[in-house]
Amino acid sequence: MSQNFNELITYGKAFSGLTPELEVCLKNFAPTITPHLKRVTDSFYEQLATIPVTEKYLAGRIGHLKAAHLRWMNDLFTLNVDAQFAEGMYKVGGIHVKVNLPVEFMAGAMTLINTELIKVVVETMSNDIDKCTKALQAINAVTGLAWMVMQQSYQEASIAEELEKFLKISGMSRTLFTNLAKAYN
Amino acid sequence: MSQNFNELITYGKAFSGLTPELEVCLKNFAPTITPHLKRVTDSFYEQLATIPVTEKYLAGRIGHLKAAHLRWMNDLFTLNVDAQFAEGMYKVGGIHVKVNLPVEFMAGAMTLINTELIKVVVETMSNDIDKCTKALQAINAVTGLAWMVMQQSYQEASIAEELEKFLKISGMSRTLFTNLAKAYN
Repeated sequence: MSQNFNELITYGKAFSGLTPELEVCLKNFAPTITPHLKRVTDSFYEQLATIPVTEKYLAGRIGHLKAAHLRWMNDLFTLNVDAQFAEGMYKVGGIHVKVNLPVEFMAGAMTLINTELIKVVVETMSNDIDKCTKALQAINAVTGLAWMVMQQSYQEASIAEELEKFLKISGMSRTLFTNLAKAYN
Repeated sequence: MSQNFNELITYGKAFSGLTPELEVCLKNFAPTITPHLKRVTDSFYEQLATIPVTEKYLAGRIGHLKAAHLRWMNDLFTLNVDAQFAEGMYKVGGIHVKVNLPVEFMAGAMTLINTELIKVVVETMSNDIDKCTKALQAINAVTGLAWMVMQQSYQEASIAEELEKFLKISGMSRTLFTNLAKAYN
């Protein structure tokens, strides 16, 4: 399926509640938050290292993973949230399938990151409750949006991989399968 | 795959950062939050009704959906977070596949709900910043945990459905496929 990233970003914004007001808010407080993202990333990987299931994916490449993660987090706060943003996040979901990350890793990761970001927001903005609330909502919305898009591509990539497996096991050619599928539908 | 829900809940708590401290906190503020969950649910369905992709799943059953959703939200705040909790959430993920909900619906829904809950927490607890922060983190953790578990069952159910489709299209029996798969692995 070829994605229409303009449609996807419009849909994603509506479903994550990333309103124009929250988008502006995200840009405004980005300079306050981004200096803390390295700390958020470090703390995230420290937590992953304590969980047996996740720990085994880290061995020997934690430096590389941290750097990629920090870039991705910076993107969340600094990129314009447009079709190109959706395309970038969509690629990330597919990569998770290629490296055989279990499906729940994205949900778990987002949750741990949001817990750290809640701390950063409260620490830096609690003198202004309204600003603090909007920042929390904007962060929740943009991480949710990224998650939705990554989820879609993860699902598509894993279904495609599953078909690949069926074809190998059954010894059926892709052409024969495609023709049978057409006849069946 | 038969799930070990004791293992799943331990893993889920670690990966969502639902510490014993946050679990206690969740129980403590539940009576403050639960009276607002009907409003959160109403607002959630109002937002779904404005999105073309989600709106079409609501027609004619919004009353039923709202009631189920409110029960589910109450469970998040009031149930003990144990193996039985994991089993309940696991079933919810499978149901989403059965009724053909797109994969990103859970991510979108969780995000909209969290944005509403942030508002409720700040409204009811902003006089105590520390309490407010812990409540936000506890809610983020328990919704994230529910999401992780639902995600796993959604993925398993959709892969199982894909196999079903493949068997129908290829005309292959399940026994033959299973035997070939054994030989292949």
